[in-house]
Amino acid sequence: MTSQIFPTDVQQSLDLAGIFVFALSGGLLAVRKNMDIFGICVLAEVTALGGGVMRDLVIGATPVAAFTNLGYFVTPLAAALVVFFLHPEVERINRAVQTLDALGLGLFCVTGTAKAHDYGLGAVAAIALGMVTAAGGGVIRDVLAGEIPALLRWDREIYAVPALVGSGLVALLIGADRLTGATGTAAALTAFVLRMLALKYGWRAPRAWHRNGSRTSEE
Amino acid sequence: MTSQIFPTDVQQSLDLAGIFVFALSGGLLAVRKNMDIFGICVLAEVTALGGGVMRDLVIGATPVAAFTNLGYFVTPLAAALVVFFLHPEVERINRAVQTLDALGLGLFCVTGTAKAHDYGLGAVAAIALGMVTAAGGGVIRDVLAGEIPALLRWDREIYAVPALVGSGLVALLIGADRLTGATGTAAALTAFVLRMLALKYGWRAPRAWHRNGSRTSEE
Amino acid sequence: MTSQIFPTDVQQSLDLAGIFVFALSGGLLAVRKNMDIFGICVLAEVTALGGGVMRDLVIGATPVAAFTNLGYFVTPLAAALVVFFLHPEVERINRAVQTLDALGLGLFCVTGTAKAHDYGLGAVAAIALGMVTAAGGGVIRDVLAGEIPALLRWDREIYAVPALVGSGLVALLIGADRLTGATGTAAALTAFVLRMLALKYGWRAPRAWHRNGSRTSEE
Repeated sequence: MTSQIFPTDVQQSLDLAGIFVFALSGGLLAVRKNMDIFGICVLAEVTALGGGVMRDLVIGATPVAAFTNLGYFVTPLAAALVVFFLHPEVERINRAVQTLDALGLGLFCVTGTAKAHDYGLGAVAAIALGMVTAAGGGVIRDVLAGEIPALLRWDREIYAVPALVGSGLVALLIGADRLTGATGTAAALTAFVLRMLALKYGWRAPRAWHRNGSRTSEE
Repeated sequence: MTSQIFPTDVQQSLDLAGIFVFALSGGLLAVRKNMDIFGICVLAEVTALGGGVMRDLVIGATPVAAFTNLGYFVTPLAAALVVFFLHPEVERINRAVQTLDALGLGLFCVTGTAKAHDYGLGAVAAIALGMVTAAGGGVIRDVLAGEIPALLRWDREIYAVPALVGSGLVALLIGADRLTGATGTAAALTAFVLRMLALKYGWRAPRAWHRNGSRTSEE
Repeated sequence: MTSQIFPTDVQQSLDLAGIFVFALSGGLLAVRKNMDIFGICVLAEVTALGGGVMRDLVIGATPVAAFTNLGYFVTPLAAALVVFFLHPEVERINRAVQTLDALGLGLFCVTGTAKAHDYGLGAVAAIALGMVTAAGGGVIRDVLAGEIPALLRWDREIYAVPALVGSGLVALLIGADRLTGATGTAAALTAFVLRMLALKYGWRAPRAWHRNGSRTSEE
């Protein structure tokens, strides 16, 4: 296992922190959608763990980590309880949640790419699975909530580019045999900073050329 | 394989009965959504088998049981034909279908939890996968039909609690080394009775505290 | 591996052609839904590869082929770029795209059924997985775009029947030990021709009997 970028306990703490903030975003959407406590728990779980589960299924790492590590599974339930009791307070610190979510994005694209490489996948596939790890849970969250995934919408700040840059840096580091705790952290921070800049300056990705304005749908 | 709670032929018969009634619920939703015969078949299949397929993928039990046991695959098609030709009659006995669905819920949370334990998962993960087995198919059904999954909606009678109780009892029984045909049946019946009571008395789960009434969405 | 119906390079070329046209259909829907370049790429990828990924997960062929064959992954990105820059031109040749999509349908139901058989699945399950390979990507595409899957809608030309016929012919050929490049091509062409006829004559599948006209939903 070369995916061990960080010491085991550091890795575990970072994973749990990322899972917690992703779960908060899932729980908050459930509250906005007027779901009950179980809806909050389910959306917290799938948002936090969905990306990693998809990666593990694709690479054949079964039973998937989300179900063999008790902390991975219980952490989203804790986030769901926080949202259940304190959601106005959590909404109020929305900027802080977005910041933490960006940290989760940076962390997961790095660890997802590294894990995919450990299972023998090539650089391009590892990058793709790093992005799936970082963004996949949010896609399931939005589908279950009956919305077009934010990842795909032109009117949301870019999420895919920071994940792509972070995953790409990790693939380059692996190729140069330079992936360490320090360089992995640098890749994660690069993705984090890009996402924060996208949020601050409202960066959006272009839509198709020559679009006929009258044909834009309501989305 | 210690998941063999019941004699093989009893287990098989119970599985097929549960699959059949889950498939009926999928087929009926397809008819309500004005889908054609293939839509009815697809929704019958995914509702009946989706939860078990998700469980098998997560624990790495491939090829998944739903595709290696011919009866599991053909039974939903039979249910789809029943719905296709007799759907007004099936709608009319909606209470009976709900009762059978509750039996399927009880059965699948028990067998799902037991199978997950057999594949080496811990108690909490096994409980979660028991709930996935019982409720996952319905979630896919609703997503494919373009609806917010009933499982997540506050305005539907609780489905997750009966599944949680049934799965939790099985985990306790396994922990105490007491899971037998009799105790497994008792756990399934407990889940069944809870679900029937929820339907009868309209039990619903709470939504988040301090919700601002004016912010409730249309869901 | 008996799934090698065609010589390796022929098979690879056919696969890439099918992936390319499926990706075009995903990218075009993304443009219609007003998504940005990343939405176009994601919908191109899932439409082209989703069916095969589902098949590989179910039969346990991990890491799944879509992530171990670089060409499979990069081809949809090329299609996404074509759509991004030339989508009015691609829309204009919509009939050509539909024809190519029908070819992809024929090809994928044949190779999907053959691969499932290679992994030890029975005839019925192999047929089902052939259909999943051919139609599964389109279902994910529609769900991500917030639409009821076209496969399930009565007001779309039949897609499942051609796939069923193609997959069924392959299962028969395997049973008779007669699956060769020639007979496999014949099965694929049969599915292709059926789909083209369905498009030309507007063939639709029946909805449930005795539907009460007043109960039809808006779908």
